[in-house]
Amino acid sequence: MAASINLRRAYRGKRVLITGGLGFIGSNLARRLVSLGAEVSIVDSLVPEYGGNRRNLGDVRSKVRVHIADVRDWPKLPRLVSGQDYLFNLAGQTSHMDSMTDPQTDLDINCRAQLAILEACRLHNPGIRIVFASTRQLYGRPDYLPVDEQHPVRPVDVNGINKLAGETFHLLYSRVHGIRATALRLTNTIGPRMRIKDARQTFVGVWIRRTLEGQPLEVWGGEQLRDFTYVDDAVEAFLLAAVHPKAEGKVYNLGGPPPIALEALAELLVTVNGGGAFVVRPFPAERKKIDIGDYYADDRLIRRELGWRPRADVRTALAKTLAYFRRELRYYV
Amino acid sequence: MAASINLRRAYRGKRVLITGGLGFIGSNLARRLVSLGAEVSIVDSLVPEYGGNRRNLGDVRSKVRVHIADVRDWPKLPRLVSGQDYLFNLAGQTSHMDSMTDPQTDLDINCRAQLAILEACRLHNPGIRIVFASTRQLYGRPDYLPVDEQHPVRPVDVNGINKLAGETFHLLYSRVHGIRATALRLTNTIGPRMRIKDARQTFVGVWIRRTLEGQPLEVWGGEQLRDFTYVDDAVEAFLLAAVHPKAEGKVYNLGGPPPIALEALAELLVTVNGGGAFVVRPFPAERKKIDIGDYYADDRLIRRELGWRPRADVRTALAKTLAYFRRELRYYV
Repeated sequence: MAASINLRRAYRGKRVLITGGLGFIGSNLARRLVSLGAEVSIVDSLVPEYGGNRRNLGDVRSKVRVHIADVRDWPKLPRLVSGQDYLFNLAGQTSHMDSMTDPQTDLDINCRAQLAILEACRLHNPGIRIVFASTRQLYGRPDYLPVDEQHPVRPVDVNGINKLAGETFHLLYSRVHGIRATALRLTNTIGPRMRIKDARQTFVGVWIRRTLEGQPLEVWGGEQLRDFTYVDDAVEAFLLAAVHPKAEGKVYNLGGPPPIALEALAELLVTVNGGGAFVVRPFPAERKKIDIGDYYADDRLIRRELGWRPRADVRTALAKTLAYFRRELRYYV
Repeated sequence: MAASINLRRAYRGKRVLITGGLGFIGSNLARRLVSLGAEVSIVDSLVPEYGGNRRNLGDVRSKVRVHIADVRDWPKLPRLVSGQDYLFNLAGQTSHMDSMTDPQTDLDINCRAQLAILEACRLHNPGIRIVFASTRQLYGRPDYLPVDEQHPVRPVDVNGINKLAGETFHLLYSRVHGIRATALRLTNTIGPRMRIKDARQTFVGVWIRRTLEGQPLEVWGGEQLRDFTYVDDAVEAFLLAAVHPKAEGKVYNLGGPPPIALEALAELLVTVNGGGAFVVRPFPAERKKIDIGDYYADDRLIRRELGWRPRADVRTALAKTLAYFRRELRYYV
């Protein structure tokens, strides 16, 4: 396991800040970084509609410094970024529907605060190394599949527009101001600690919850192809991107195992759970306007350049996710 | 002159709001709309670094309603957009250099306020027809020339990132919320009432001023090809775009006469002025990082779809601009 040895060497004793660090991917990243020997600080707003949950840190709680603060609160940013070696910038508003009903909040978090974070780095810690959590949502409805990083960006909702601006700020600051940054365009990520209260992170969260509660889950449409990244694999990508010189100023897609149709995913979930049911419903009209059809990533660039190797197939990802939430359900609903 | 007859019929008695209406293009548009019989209201912040200048309205001052207000002042927007038939949305921060030194201000005006304007329209006047002043700056350094609307967007500075978000919000609101909007991607626009105090709108402003003041003008580089639109032709494009059903939800490049190298432009300016001088200097290092090289637009789409016909060649544009500022210089420096 050469990669994990390198990561241990890279992160031991290093100071790391994670925005959105009580959230799904952020908390998994924090736990992993603690195990690698890093000094981990977290910023999280704990806004109830977002992904933050104190339970997510589990048994590393005492080994992590947690700042409950909102990235929209600019005056706090300089002190937070100062002295850090790495910034994993995962704070974000993820709901597409919320971005359409309350577009200004989405803008303030996903666009305006990102610029403020970068300005804080430029003025107070220009040597920091940043990895930004971007999204496949930037591509909009794909022209071709699988979607590589050369695919035109054409966001279809307010969230996508703001995330694109946020990502582009990172790349600009990397190129013009020398603030080394990498953007990872995530697809659906699943795993322990994901938001299952509602569909604000991904519809799969609600599926997990309903299945564990013995309720039939709802599949909208069913034919759409999607790809999924298991959270441990996503975490590995963040860790690699932050330390690999080739990644500076770059954008990478994350993918994972081969794509799967949503109805097949529902079947698999019910099977892995050892029971459950689903119903297929027509796609809701108000979502159709911002739907993107099939999507799956071409992630060969990060595999080739950074040596990223996703390990979990979808069945394993679902099994581990179900196992976690079977134990922890009451803290997440 | 079928077009002008149609425009008179289209705008007579219509209520029109122009944001940035005391600015260069905005004021020329206001004057033309008054001559077409429209009821014109203007919003302008008169921030000294931007293009607004009360002198710009000239003899139509008494025929236009002027609100001195900033588009960042959201509570004022609903009352301003209510009851208007057309919105020409030209308020913006245009300086690329300012966007790099004060990125948050650029974001607040070019991105955040644009979303607020659109929200005001969605909630208080969804039947309004909008034309948004976008910019060639979105394309970044061109992959090919001339640049058509299919060229990838890849902004190279904070201004470009925010203008791209602002433009995309307009197109999204058109598509999803039915707020009919068109974006015009402007190239260098020149003419009477342009900002000549400094290079915040275009370097040509400073050239005009120095030439009229009998100072040698500075050409940075000189080989770069650029295209120029005379302001009356730009105004015509705005007027056509707002009334043409084909333009709804669309993006059009504006171009004009064939492109010209900057050194040749300087020569032409001095010639048209009947005297003057220029010096060629190497391109400043701090601008190089955000420079785009050659640019000129493929504007065939708007010519074909909307029947736009730019009339002024570069010599005429310079002559008219010089004639205006020769009379009015003291109000602009």
